[in-house]
Amino acid sequence: MTGLEQTFAALADPTRRRVVEALQRGARRAGELAETTHMSAPALSRHLRVLREHGLVAEERIDDDARVRVYRLRRERFDELQEWLTRFETFWTLQLDSFKAHAERKSRSKRA
Amino acid sequence: MTGLEQTFAALADPTRRRVVEALQRGARRAGELAETTHMSAPALSRHLRVLREHGLVAEERIDDDARVRVYRLRRERFDELQEWLTRFETFWTLQLDSFKAHAERKSRSKRA
Repeated sequence: MTGLEQTFAALADPTRRRVVEALQRGARRAGELAETTHMSAPALSRHLRVLREHGLVAEERIDDDARVRVYRLRRERFDELQEWLTRFETFWTLQLDSFKAHAERKSRSKRA
Repeated sequence: MTGLEQTFAALADPTRRRVVEALQRGARRAGELAETTHMSAPALSRHLRVLREHGLVAEERIDDDARVRVYRLRRERFDELQEWLTRFETFWTLQLDSFKAHAERKSRSKRA
């Protein structure tokens, strides 16, 4: 699986999108995430595992207490998705430019 | 299904991503798309149906010949995905700003 494939597979699930959206505000403990996303601990745990395995989320231990783990977004996958999407943006821009050029040629030929 | 949900479901399939990527260069006939994406006509037809039903691709008839249909990308879904992704971009930027501010405070306190 390529990175992009993993990203789309992970984010196709609306519950997992809710988890990454909740992490937009910064790293969170599993308990906090379960509360924000209204999920049971086992359900959240399953989704966090998929998100980790697909490279979208990292698990970190807090130094002071080895038992406490926090989850945070990993930027790489989102940057990759952005790069893929930007190619479409380039396409719309080119299309608009060519439409404008066409419209201008038409308006010039009318005036001439 | 929300628009975003439809978009992720449609794009989670690598073959369908290949189809929308092929359409980045402009509208194409089914025959041309089958060739570019190395797919059989029935396989492509199935994927085009999903892409149409999920709102990512539009089917259009060419005026001169009612039998010929071309496929083109619909911008709305891609704009929506971009909007969703931009919220993450905002998060990284804020995070970076706060990191910089922290580093500057540290460097000032060392000099003082």
